[in-house]
Amino acid sequence: MLSPNPHLWLGLIICGAGVNYVFENSIFALQNPVIDLKPQQVMAKQKPTIPKGTRDFSPSVVVKRKYIFQIIEQAFQRYAYQPLETPSMENLSTLLGKYGEEGDQLLFRILDSGDFFNGQAIELLKNHFPGEGNSAALSSQLRNQIASKGLRYDLTVPFARYVVQHRNELTFPFKRYQIQPVWRADKPQKGRYREFYQCDGDVIGTHSLLNEVELIQIVDDVFTRLNLKVTIKINNRKVLKGLTEYVGQPDKFMDLTMAIDKLDKIGPEKVKQEMRQRGLSGAAVDKLEPFFSLSGDNRGKLQHLTRMLEGEQGQKGLEETQQILDYIEVLTLNNPVEFDPQLARGLDYYTGTIFEVKAHEMDMGSICGGGRYDDLTGVFGLNDVSGVGISFGAERIYDVLDKLGRFPTHMQPAPRIMFVNFGRKETQKALEILQALRKEDIPAEIYPDPVKMKKQMSYANHRSIDYVGMIGEDEIARDVITVKNMESGEQKQLSLQALKDLLAGSD
Amino acid sequence: MLSPNPHLWLGLIICGAGVNYVFENSIFALQNPVIDLKPQQVMAKQKPTIPKGTRDFSPSVVVKRKYIFQIIEQAFQRYAYQPLETPSMENLSTLLGKYGEEGDQLLFRILDSGDFFNGQAIELLKNHFPGEGNSAALSSQLRNQIASKGLRYDLTVPFARYVVQHRNELTFPFKRYQIQPVWRADKPQKGRYREFYQCDGDVIGTHSLLNEVELIQIVDDVFTRLNLKVTIKINNRKVLKGLTEYVGQPDKFMDLTMAIDKLDKIGPEKVKQEMRQRGLSGAAVDKLEPFFSLSGDNRGKLQHLTRMLEGEQGQKGLEETQQILDYIEVLTLNNPVEFDPQLARGLDYYTGTIFEVKAHEMDMGSICGGGRYDDLTGVFGLNDVSGVGISFGAERIYDVLDKLGRFPTHMQPAPRIMFVNFGRKETQKALEILQALRKEDIPAEIYPDPVKMKKQMSYANHRSIDYVGMIGEDEIARDVITVKNMESGEQKQLSLQALKDLLAGSD
Repeated sequence: MLSPNPHLWLGLIICGAGVNYVFENSIFALQNPVIDLKPQQVMAKQKPTIPKGTRDFSPSVVVKRKYIFQIIEQAFQRYAYQPLETPSMENLSTLLGKYGEEGDQLLFRILDSGDFFNGQAIELLKNHFPGEGNSAALSSQLRNQIASKGLRYDLTVPFARYVVQHRNELTFPFKRYQIQPVWRADKPQKGRYREFYQCDGDVIGTHSLLNEVELIQIVDDVFTRLNLKVTIKINNRKVLKGLTEYVGQPDKFMDLTMAIDKLDKIGPEKVKQEMRQRGLSGAAVDKLEPFFSLSGDNRGKLQHLTRMLEGEQGQKGLEETQQILDYIEVLTLNNPVEFDPQLARGLDYYTGTIFEVKAHEMDMGSICGGGRYDDLTGVFGLNDVSGVGISFGAERIYDVLDKLGRFPTHMQPAPRIMFVNFGRKETQKALEILQALRKEDIPAEIYPDPVKMKKQMSYANHRSIDYVGMIGEDEIARDVITVKNMESGEQKQLSLQALKDLLAGSD
Repeated sequence: MLSPNPHLWLGLIICGAGVNYVFENSIFALQNPVIDLKPQQVMAKQKPTIPKGTRDFSPSVVVKRKYIFQIIEQAFQRYAYQPLETPSMENLSTLLGKYGEEGDQLLFRILDSGDFFNGQAIELLKNHFPGEGNSAALSSQLRNQIASKGLRYDLTVPFARYVVQHRNELTFPFKRYQIQPVWRADKPQKGRYREFYQCDGDVIGTHSLLNEVELIQIVDDVFTRLNLKVTIKINNRKVLKGLTEYVGQPDKFMDLTMAIDKLDKIGPEKVKQEMRQRGLSGAAVDKLEPFFSLSGDNRGKLQHLTRMLEGEQGQKGLEETQQILDYIEVLTLNNPVEFDPQLARGLDYYTGTIFEVKAHEMDMGSICGGGRYDDLTGVFGLNDVSGVGISFGAERIYDVLDKLGRFPTHMQPAPRIMFVNFGRKETQKALEILQALRKEDIPAEIYPDPVKMKKQMSYANHRSIDYVGMIGEDEIARDVITVKNMESGEQKQLSLQALKDLLAGSD
């Protein structure tokens, strides 16, 4: 009589001790099971939308996102990182010029309130108007006159701004983590959003390589708890500097770095071509040949490069890497740490160790990255303060976990039990039971209206609720609760204490 | 020899078994104990700032804010509310016209990317230019041409938008909670910010008064766990409608409501005056006299009004209130629920029960409020969907808890233990111990640099770290850890297991 799939099961006969609830045993369409939207309820009005590149996170998605954020947050906490939150909007003077010209274009600017169109803006217009032909140029000039605030583009610049602004209150070294959304007016496409979260951890005010070691441990810890196998790649910008010393063009450091950063995407031949375009001599590029064919284990690569890069910077970068690997060796991590001299990273403020993390089971690009910077706060007037940080790509991590099916089961944002609503008197009793359950932190609810059983059970099915409780006259008289396991179909009568024990368990 | 205040104690003699660490016993300035900022490090550049009305939340504040959010979130979860998150920016078409004219003025508009200054904007300018004298009018017209998105002003309109947009995927009744920031270009003043959090819970798609009962329970639950005594005031908009029936001016419902809403601020005489200004007749206002002097307990007030308000709406409002109070009666809440017929609330979309919560121990105005609305989604084309919701004023709750000293002690965002850094070899051992502690979810760290003990202890003092661990040669040889309780000054040698046991406890 019951459907084999309990989540499609809609008709039921419940036999409490002496009381029978009988309902129709019919299958009906499962869409909008509870509210019946009549056509006239939805007016001709256009369905509302949200700005492109932004997302609504429905409950089942929020639960999964919070799972990731929480694992990252707790890892940072175990390593004594402190939480920081900065405002969504920063002064444009804080943001502009920090992300290159392209970054400036991608800032979301907030229109000044009130009469933004006065003073310099109107002057500007006067000189340029009529300017039908050059509205783009006018826009680009006007933009900085009528907007003085912007949405933050990342968490690094606000962090540097915070450190400088609050330097007299902070205890250094200052270790902070920050998990907040950032905004970029990028062209939206699959996996790229205009509003997305960053999860950053940084320590500032210390040169110690122990910080690098701890960040590697944090990465290992996070991905272990997320049940994802990864490779943690490290390199050192000084090794790349060493390469420019080696080829006798130490001024070409950023050019060499930016070219090598494209190795994964365009391959060695095109990288060499780009190096030449960026001003490295043909002889220099030829001299780099062994660098492109480096292989072997960490020790082997380190030895090879130690012989090859005799300059001061190269030696220093290799020593630092060696030291980090030595520390790591005794710590038996769950994921391999690989010295990859071809790792470059795109950001120009890195000066020492750099990190990048890749998932083993899926080619998703980097899901975490970071590095050491020796002068991040210099741009705000505080020089020579070294720091190192890492950023987890939560959005990509979500996609990987989702595609690999690695989110824990039972992550439904659902209560453990729903009570059927049989009317006023029974509800009074159910409310008492509910109060007792919630006191024990057991999420529970009662269906709000005494409507047909079919409708109530359909709601419980849709929400994937584990148990349905029923309290009728007989249950009240005998002080028990009839409880149905929605998965197995099993049904029994329990005391309140037995119900608490059942629901407090994980299943 | 030791200072009586362990957090100012900076000189110490530690006697491990056979090894003595001796440090200078001098007091020094506590500012910037670790990083020594030389004047030349801070350039002439102006100190960076943040936009007015926004705030940086430093670690100790974040921890307290999260404490509040978590208690609210967990309460909603116990009542089977599901988490929802919507984008920070909405289309202006979604936001405009929902908050009255004043609200429209307070929206933060986001400047369109690229060439925003084309098409209609340039046309508009052509017709108005030169317009030096009327730049304000020009701004106000131009504003909607060059910006098509705005930051959300509250969580209610995005929720209504979400429900309409996703109605085919949702199971109704839909109970959701949402804890996210909102933005208003309000004049910043004490306690009023341009970016602040709202914590909302709503259930939509049911008329059942059980939802009101549960919201009252949630409020009681939250403030009980926050250790705050409150009064939960309820009324019903239909009671206010009943008043207009009673005085024979049923068309003056919103005028009467808006006047009564000011009772707390301006007193009864000015409210009556405002009623007259808003078009209630002198006779009508006189007839309301008994309403202003209503007193007694809930039952008394209900009886009085039931005799007084004979119209359909008034009777309905009183019946609903009676039913809610009946349900509540058997639930023994920790905070009183008071029927207050003079409660009005400012928002115009409420149609049934309304709530407001006040703290007993401090006059802070309302710290939580809400109500039932019968047509919130109508504005987006979905009519006749009733809902009821509540909003916790987390910012005010923070201020109350802070001023009353009700935040739990030991809420420092600090690790349980900091290990002193004695150099390479000792650090290697400390890292192993740290790894073992963190595996047990015990937050712990090592000072990153092997600098002077004074500097390291100063750091531990500043961060209010409970224990300092020391591992020197002797400790390594004997496989123990020297642990100092920073509060009591007590010091002992422990095995790793004993240390775990010590730190896993709450103190």
